[in-house]
Amino acid sequence: MQSRRDFLKTAALAALGVGMLTQDALAGEKRKPSLFHVNRKVGVNPVMRLRFFPYELRLNHVFTVASYSRSTTPDVQVELEYDGVIGYGEATMPPYLQKELGTMESVMAFLKRVQDTISRFPDPFQMEDILAYVDSLSPGDSAAKAAVDIALHDLVGKLLQAPWYKLWGLNKEKTPDTTYTIGIDTPEVVRQKTRECAERFNILKVKLGRENDREMIETIRSVTHLPIAVDANQGWTDRAYALDMIHWLKEQGVVMVEQPMPKERMEDIAWITAQSPLPVFADEAVQRLKDIAALKGVYTGINIKLMKCTGMREAWKMVTLARALDMRVMVGCMTETSCGISAAAQFSPAVDFADLDGNLLIANDRFQGVEVVKGKITLPDLPGIGVVKV
Amino acid sequence: MQSRRDFLKTAALAALGVGMLTQDALAGEKRKPSLFHVNRKVGVNPVMRLRFFPYELRLNHVFTVASYSRSTTPDVQVELEYDGVIGYGEATMPPYLQKELGTMESVMAFLKRVQDTISRFPDPFQMEDILAYVDSLSPGDSAAKAAVDIALHDLVGKLLQAPWYKLWGLNKEKTPDTTYTIGIDTPEVVRQKTRECAERFNILKVKLGRENDREMIETIRSVTHLPIAVDANQGWTDRAYALDMIHWLKEQGVVMVEQPMPKERMEDIAWITAQSPLPVFADEAVQRLKDIAALKGVYTGINIKLMKCTGMREAWKMVTLARALDMRVMVGCMTETSCGISAAAQFSPAVDFADLDGNLLIANDRFQGVEVVKGKITLPDLPGIGVVKV
Repeated sequence: MQSRRDFLKTAALAALGVGMLTQDALAGEKRKPSLFHVNRKVGVNPVMRLRFFPYELRLNHVFTVASYSRSTTPDVQVELEYDGVIGYGEATMPPYLQKELGTMESVMAFLKRVQDTISRFPDPFQMEDILAYVDSLSPGDSAAKAAVDIALHDLVGKLLQAPWYKLWGLNKEKTPDTTYTIGIDTPEVVRQKTRECAERFNILKVKLGRENDREMIETIRSVTHLPIAVDANQGWTDRAYALDMIHWLKEQGVVMVEQPMPKERMEDIAWITAQSPLPVFADEAVQRLKDIAALKGVYTGINIKLMKCTGMREAWKMVTLARALDMRVMVGCMTETSCGISAAAQFSPAVDFADLDGNLLIANDRFQGVEVVKGKITLPDLPGIGVVKV
Repeated sequence: MQSRRDFLKTAALAALGVGMLTQDALAGEKRKPSLFHVNRKVGVNPVMRLRFFPYELRLNHVFTVASYSRSTTPDVQVELEYDGVIGYGEATMPPYLQKELGTMESVMAFLKRVQDTISRFPDPFQMEDILAYVDSLSPGDSAAKAAVDIALHDLVGKLLQAPWYKLWGLNKEKTPDTTYTIGIDTPEVVRQKTRECAERFNILKVKLGRENDREMIETIRSVTHLPIAVDANQGWTDRAYALDMIHWLKEQGVVMVEQPMPKERMEDIAWITAQSPLPVFADEAVQRLKDIAALKGVYTGINIKLMKCTGMREAWKMVTLARALDMRVMVGCMTETSCGISAAAQFSPAVDFADLDGNLLIANDRFQGVEVVKGKITLPDLPGIGVVKV
């Protein structure tokens, strides 16, 4: 029998990180040298330190939309160090999303505030407190918040020597295939790109919501029978037209549709979803956890993006909430290095669709992490978010 | 630069649990012998094994309600072993909840089914798959399911060498005070018990919903000014009377009310909650995750009990869902050993009220774990659910 006094002593020593356990604590268990090892030295009081620097992502191909074209994406790389271990994070701010995600200047300014104050938290494991504090610093700045969140997750996962899919209790064999986007272009170029992609991916993605929607789908279908995910990007303005399109798309082997109409048109979208033969996902309509409950009955599911939702902790709550409301879940991304993509991939075993091709579009990836193997997201068994610097 | 081939080799080795990382993986990090240690030997293929046995809980005091009295509670103790590490779990089945929680026979039969099949899961970290499988075995059996879930959490936490409050990112300093129930008795006995409890606890609990509700509160108030939590146990039948009582209770220093009316009376309860000066918690009205969304707007919050909700994984999802719906959360219990109570205490830093006195009521606790120190729930820094056998 262990006395109460001895027990409290044990607990107090454990609190110091000594990890010592009495005989009783190990009763019935084979003692293994690695199991209750000493993680830190008594008397050392490590603190968290944040570092960050701008890092412009160079795109493999010039990205063109109606209003402009660009060949780079502003990005900030983050490192959170504690007790000699470094967690990596990133914020990426595509120019067309500056209002939601922030700019290089706003992200750097926000991270400076975190840098100046994060040492007040003694323990990186207190993620709820730390991230609630970070979130409280401003109403927006979702990309900067995501950068801190990802770095903290990477750090904590490394301290636990476990990847986050494992800490979340997920099975890495259940990762989905990722979609890969075929850009809008001349039929000739679309056919060529589709041919190339059909060899590497099991599901394609197309952005519709324009005049030439049917032509685009038919061009792809002239080359491959692979399933297609469609993002209408709020592009359809008439609900009857949108529903007709969805019926036609279903016949063409399309498997899901994102954001068929402008996000404000809730009633029209609910009307479409109620009759749609395909699942309808919210994209522009959802940013964070607080947005989801109101979307039940309006959309079939939600698209979760780390840069929009402030990071992995909120993303995982969003998965839980959506599932509890019997909604489907997909995970999306921006142009990101393998840092952000690997972080998002950690919860991909729990989603229905994944659109995680952002790291495949850049020429200067700083990390290796998640891989696409025969079209399927393939998680490494590295701790944290699962990345190594290249 | 690490080649793709080298990287895949690293990942494959990591998958074998070798934990070897190349130089690149450690770039910028101080190498620590404990950080990427070898957890298992290559070539060993451990399997999960479940053991269980009946264990009758002996109550310190005879428990009397209108219909019967009892001095024991049926309980089943569970051990889940993997690779020489043992996780502890428990199912407890108070007779008045047999319909919901099961009987000794039904629990033993359910656990036998799990025992015969759990070895099909190669990895205890695949908690989502394992617990979804266990849940799929029958529609009910919530206590037996909780026993498996708690043992699995204890096992996985021990394999990670971390307590669950830490894996959930919570701050152990934020545990609440626990309530302690003053049983209904003669005024003399109530005064005596209240005196004793007022020395050890910072908040008391009383079960009301009878003729003598005011007398009971006044008797306690003749001895102490401590805050009181009230469980009306569906006992009030008229909504105007219930609201009047709640106003009166508020004046008496009561801080919350559970289940003021029968759970079927949703409209009446919503009417009470809308006007109540105290938060109103669902108890009988909530069992599992799927029940919560419908209670938004009806109650202020929910009471989560492991034996009813199938365990820690679902409980944590319930916390997330309730918070996302802007509802409050409390954690409750049955008569349990420190095994079940310590498991529930792991998420207590995230709740508003805790009613975790079940282990204080029994004479034959098999474990030491969470303690009540000056009325506050105090978590040990032991891994898993934080218990040691006594």
